[in-house]
This record gives sequence, structure tokens and C-alpha cells, in this order.
Amino acid sequence: MSPKRAISPFALRGTVFTASNAHQLHCIENALVCVDENGVITAVLHQDDTGYSQACQHYQLQGQLTVLEPGQYVLPGFVDLHVHAPQWPQTGKALDLPLNEWLQDNTFPLEARYADIDFARQVYLSLVDTLLANGTTTAMYFATLHDRSSLELARICLEKGQRALVGRVAMDNPDQCPDYYRDESATAAIEATARFIDDVYQLPGNTLRRVRPVITPRFIPSCTDELLTGLGALARRSGCHVQTHCSESDWEHQYVQQRHHKNDTQALNDFGLITRKTVLAHANFLNDEDMDTLKAAGAGVAHCPLSNFYFSNAVFPLRKALERHLHVGLGSDLSGGHSPSMFDSCRHAITASNALHDGVDPAIQAASRGNGSAKIDFRQAFWLATGGGGEALDLPIGQIKTGYAFDALMLDCRATEGNVVIWPELDSSPDILQKIIYNAARSNIIRTWVQGELVFSR
Amino acid sequence: MSPKRAISPFALRGTVFTASNAHQLHCIENALVCVDENGVITAVLHQDDTGYSQACQHYQLQGQLTVLEPGQYVLPGFVDLHVHAPQWPQTGKALDLPLNEWLQDNTFPLEARYADIDFARQVYLSLVDTLLANGTTTAMYFATLHDRSSLELARICLEKGQRALVGRVAMDNPDQCPDYYRDESATAAIEATARFIDDVYQLPGNTLRRVRPVITPRFIPSCTDELLTGLGALARRSGCHVQTHCSESDWEHQYVQQRHHKNDTQALNDFGLITRKTVLAHANFLNDEDMDTLKAAGAGVAHCPLSNFYFSNAVFPLRKALERHLHVGLGSDLSGGHSPSMFDSCRHAITASNALHDGVDPAIQAASRGNGSAKIDFRQAFWLATGGGGEALDLPIGQIKTGYAFDALMLDCRATEGNVVIWPELDSSPDILQKIIYNAARSNIIRTWVQGELVFSR
Repeated sequence: MSPKRAISPFALRGTVFTASNAHQLHCIENALVCVDENGVITAVLHQDDTGYSQACQHYQLQGQLTVLEPGQYVLPGFVDLHVHAPQWPQTGKALDLPLNEWLQDNTFPLEARYADIDFARQVYLSLVDTLLANGTTTAMYFATLHDRSSLELARICLEKGQRALVGRVAMDNPDQCPDYYRDESATAAIEATARFIDDVYQLPGNTLRRVRPVITPRFIPSCTDELLTGLGALARRSGCHVQTHCSESDWEHQYVQQRHHKNDTQALNDFGLITRKTVLAHANFLNDEDMDTLKAAGAGVAHCPLSNFYFSNAVFPLRKALERHLHVGLGSDLSGGHSPSMFDSCRHAITASNALHDGVDPAIQAASRGNGSAKIDFRQAFWLATGGGGEALDLPIGQIKTGYAFDALMLDCRATEGNVVIWPELDSSPDILQKIIYNAARSNIIRTWVQGELVFSR
Repeated sequence: MSPKRAISPFALRGTVFTASNAHQLHCIENALVCVDENGVITAVLHQDDTGYSQACQHYQLQGQLTVLEPGQYVLPGFVDLHVHAPQWPQTGKALDLPLNEWLQDNTFPLEARYADIDFARQVYLSLVDTLLANGTTTAMYFATLHDRSSLELARICLEKGQRALVGRVAMDNPDQCPDYYRDESATAAIEATARFIDDVYQLPGNTLRRVRPVITPRFIPSCTDELLTGLGALARRSGCHVQTHCSESDWEHQYVQQRHHKNDTQALNDFGLITRKTVLAHANFLNDEDMDTLKAAGAGVAHCPLSNFYFSNAVFPLRKALERHLHVGLGSDLSGGHSPSMFDSCRHAITASNALHDGVDPAIQAASRGNGSAKIDFRQAFWLATGGGGEALDLPIGQIKTGYAFDALMLDCRATEGNVVIWPELDSSPDILQKIIYNAARSNIIRTWVQGELVFSR
């Protein structure tokens, strides 16, 4: 299948859920969402708006109106800010192992297999299909250090229609990377990254930049100073997005302290890697100065609540970051996180915030058990998974809003496969969204669009 | 539909996952599971066992053999030890509210509606259908204080074929229960409970005790001493199961301390409510003495990890309880927990244990952040959701094992609706179970049996 980007204008009428920030949730019943031939939302009309009836009639006469049935809802597509694409085959396994065994005995050997382009192709097709079926319209991917299979991931996203930001991973530090899975030098990694950027932009059919390249130093421990310096310069020159891991765990945080005598964020900033288009995965051990640095640059954080519980030894101080108006979205962190569904990321963002707020150890007195200022609810989780991710990427996505790309999903909560049970006489619109966030599954998602293009349906 | 309990003998051939305790997981490839006309497992043959081929041939000749296809697996049915049936309509909502608003403004008014038998019937049919579709073959239910609708829940479980333990809730304390939703006196509540026990045993078709009554004081704060004393005497007289909440939250734990100058467990024990057939929901703030008391009585704990994160202010010290050989299973705690799926309970049991182990607050130094001795993995979670629940109830369920009831589910991991992605060349049998625990959904469950009877299929 070659990329087909041309669409006809259309409109959807039904209940829309969208958030314009962490505290402003909009539940618009009987909304009319109008999408033009570029896949851009040209209007979101409320039923008492002037022109609503005429617009409905216009689209209906053109055969371009879809009216949602009761129990169906439109939401912005999900933005997953942190996916390790090559780890897809080990999703949901090896989570019983300590980090070192997980990485050295499982993850690195698996990633090394992507020298085999056929294996890469098989995995990446499965992953992109799965994410679209789960309503993830935009994903920010770590691929591997293999040029060809990384580009193949970008090509597959383009073929399937997913909006994607893809990074060819750079990692050259012999002290921390195995011999069999390491860039041969800083220069080689920088040159390969520069080539990858050009190659992605030049992919046939990528004129609208549906797929973008990302400068991707794995994390400070995997990279020499020379590599980090070179990638920082490349970020400045190219204006590309940047992604890396930051202050993920006690070990990693301490490693950077010992090597650079400062926190990850400050070290990355010194290397020129903190920009408006940077997304830092995890960022659990940020201090106030680090948050100020990110705020000043407009850089984003990919909060990965699921993997926080497995590999981070701590939970990202999300509410504090939101109160300081940092750009934050959610990441599934496949396969450090076990689920490809952003619904699971939402749920775990809430449980993680509650754990940080109340604490968890009953042996500790209540007054000193939690930090008492960390709770979020479904509204913030929903924002993070949609508009928050779009804001972190500096792209007009993640909201059902005029001028934004129509990246969206349609849910059917009547699906017999699903556990969302709505009682019309008891549930308000926000109640319904809360029920969706807590219990919707892949089986409830019946259509997924990217830039107005239908990329999944069932 | 009237209960149909008669079945023909049959056998299933395929991969079986079952656990015989928290540390012994059995992955039996190409097993032959034989079930007699009473729904009891008469043999679980391995493919190199003497008689395996003959047995396969025998069942095949009789037309009684089902051979699983690749990607299909048999697991014991799930045992959900803590479900508030009347709260089903608010599942997945109101979780953004503080406990007091959740209880007084939402939960009590909702439970009071079950005076309306038609409403009760509508809700309970939906709930039991949903749980069977999610593979919950046994549920231990709190109903409400309404005699008729509580009995209707028992009747619906029997009609649908679910194994169930149902409690008519007793709550008479005017200081803690609202006027509109309270037993009129201790005597009235005790008499109603005694009548309910008789009524459940006498339900038409309940000769095999598929459905059992449970003595159910809501929790100490809701009950006067007179009521608790009377229900303790009734437990001794009747030999019935007992369920109540125990040391769930700081507030409740402190309330009991102030009223009885001892922990919940000791107070309940003094009232005669701690028996081999008692299941205590939550039990987060148990001390060593409490664990000794439960161990001595053989009483069980319903660990409800999901609601731990919302309403408990702490996480149950599960690993400690397992190391002391307490009987522990899992509870969804609908609707304090948001999911009817025991897969979600398994996942959250693991994340909760990791949170307790590592701690969660990055502002605290690593050495003092967690308790360092709480981690469990998918093996323990699987045991708790199946055999652990059966053991807590003192019933021969939750294992695929000779002499046990064939309460089981069949999963299909090829289902396009599911996120379990298996790579045959990379995944061992335990890997596959781990992937199932982490990513299986309702849509992967294609058949559910209780006592050999097919109660759900798709």
C-alpha cells in the first residue's frame, strides 16, 4: 500500500470529549466537527451555535456527514511520547527481572537483532498496527542503532498513516554498551543521525512531514561527551526534535552526578540538547532548578507511570510539574511499561499520583507517609494523553479544536467486548469520560483517524 | 432460563497454566484435562504420562474431546473475593472524590436504590454477565441491606451459573449510617441475616451449593456491638462464610482503635467473626499479632490493590502475609476499584508491591524510600487470583487439578481485539503466561466454565 493522503472534507456529529489544558475539560454533546481536505479541523460547532443546522444540512446533502450512534464518542487521538519500538516482542515479559538482567540479558540482545531487516519489518508492522488499533495516532519512537531498520520503521508508519517521530538511537560509550550493540564511534553515530534525518524527510509521500526524525542519544550513560556534543550541535543546526532518557532511576541519576557533577537536565542542557522540541523520558528525579531549565526552554517530559513502578524506584512528581506549567505528556515506555494502550498509561498516571500523595507503607505514620500534594484525576490524565502530548511536541494535535489536525478516535461503549458500562439516567458526560478512561479497551475503539485519514476501523 | 447443572463428561487438550501455591507455577503443554459429569476434574495428564494416548482416543471416539488451537490456553477461572454488587453502576466514576463524598453523596444513595427490585435485577444481570465474560467464575459479593434484592442477586448468579458467595449487608449503627440506609435494629439485622441464609440454601436448583450465603457486617464502624456479637454467634451456629472490611484506611483503623482500644482483627475475633471461612477485605494495617490471629484461625484476606491506591492511604503488605502463609486472594473491590477484570487486579497487585518495595517519592533518599521487602511478580499474582482465592474460601476451586471443580476459562491470544502478542520463537511458556497476565483483556476470553458447565462463550 502506498501512502494515500488525499481525503474529502467531512463532518461528524455527536458527543466530543477534548481538553484544552490540564484543568479545562470540554464535553460537547451533539457537536459538529468539520474537517477539510487537508485533514484540518475547520470548525467545532455546538448545537446552539449560529449556523449549526445549516452546516449539518450542508454536509448531509454532500453525503459527508457521519452521525454518531448513542454510546459512541469522539476523542482526540492519543499521543504516546515514549515507545521503544524494537522492544515490542518482549512487551509484558521479563518484568520479573532486575534492571540489569532486563537490559543486558534481554533488551540489548533483542535490540541487536534489528540488524535483520526482515525481523524488523515483521515487528514494526505488528507494533504500528497495534498502536493504531489502540488509538495512538502519534508515537515518538526509539528505534535501534541500525540505519536501515530504523528507516524501515519510519516508512511503515508512513505506509500505515500513523503520525510518528522516529529516532535512530545513538550510543557509543564502550563502558556502558555491549560490544555487539554499540556505535563504532561518536563521529559515526553523528553522521548516521544526520543521514537518518535527511532520509526520513525524503521518504516518498512524506511531504506533509507525517513522519519526523528525532535526534536520539539513548541516555547519558550510553554516550560519550563527544557524541552528546555533536548531537547537540546537530539539534541546533537541524531544528529537529530531540529525545533521550533523563533521571530515570537512582542508578542513572547517580551515574550522571558522578560523571558530570550535576543533574541530567543540566548536563543535557550544557550539551545543547534541551530545546523546545526536546522530550525527556521519565525525569523522575528533577529538582527545582531542573524544572526551571525545562520551563525556560519549553522542553517536554514524557511521564511513563507504568514503568515508574518497575524500573524507576520512584514516581515522577507530575502535579508539581503541572503547577509549574511544564509541558508534560504520557509515554507507554514499551516495553519497560507493559501496555500499548494509553488508557493504561492514564490509569497508572492516576494511581502513581495517588501513591505519591498518600504514600504506600502502612508501617509509616499517616502524617509522614505521603507528600500530600500529588493527586491528579482523570481530567489531567486525559489531557496528558492527548493535548499535553501535542503541546510537548509543539504540534497542533491532541485537541478537537479549530486549526488542529483531525487526529481522533471513535469509541463505541456498547461493544460487548468492553467493560465500560454506562447508565444513561445516572451518568453525566464527565462521568462517561471518567468511565472511559478507567475501563475502555482496544475493543471499544472502532475508528482511528490521522490528519483526517481513516487509518484503522473495525 | 432455569439452572441446568447436568453435563456430559468431556476433555480438553492443550496448554494449561495453573499454580499450586504462590511459588509453584505449572505450564503444562499439551495437557489432557478430563472432567466428569459432576464437573469435577478427574485427571490432568501430561503427554508423556502412561495412558495419555488412550485417554485422548477414548474422549475423541465419544465426541467429547476439544483440542485447543495454537494461541489458545486454559487457565483456572478467577476468584474475586470482594465485589460490591450494587456499586456496579458507578464503576469507574466518582474516583476523583474524597472518601466521605464518595460514600455519603454517591455510594450510600446508590445502594439505597436497591429497595427497587427492578433496578436491582437490571444491575445484577449486567454485573454477573460482565464478570463471567471477564473469566470470574467465583465472586464473593456484598449486596445491600435489602432482603429481596440481595436474594435476587443470589438467584441471578444461580441462573447464570456463576459460583457465588452472597452477603445481605448488616449495618445498624445510627452514628455512622444514614437514616435512609440502615437496619432498624441489631435484632432485625441478625434475624434478616439468618433468614437470608435459609433462603439462599433453599433457592430452587441450589442443591450443589453453587451459591452460598455470607454473614456480612459492613464493617465495625457501621455496626453496633450488639449486631457484631449476634452475627458472631450466627457464624458459629451456621458454619457460614463471613466477610467484612478490616483496617482499610487510616480513618477506619483509628475509629476502631478509639472504640475498642484494639485493632480491627482483634475486635472481630472477640466478636467471633474470625473463622476458617472468614474473608477480610483490605486488611492493610494488620500488625504481627493480627497476622498471627488470622493464621491461627485460617481466615483469609481479600487483597484489593486497585482500591488500595484510591481509598486506603496505603498498600497491603502482601509479601509479608504470604511469607507467614496467610490465606490471601484478590478482590476487585468494585466500585472502590475501577475494573471488573481480575487481570487488572493482578497487574495492580504487582505495581502495588513494587511501590511498597521501592517507595515512590523521589524526594526521599533511596535507602529509606521503600521497605525493600515487598516485591512480587506475575507468578504470585496469578496464584492469588486463582488458587489463592479458592484456598481463602476453603473450596476446591482455582486450580486445574484432580479433584477440583472445573472452573476455568479459555483464552485466545490470536484475538485481533487483544494486546497479547506472542512470538513463538522468543517466548517460553512462562513468558506467555506473563504476557497474558499483563495484557489479556476480556476480548481474549472465549469460554468460561463453572463446575464443568459452559457459562459464557463467544
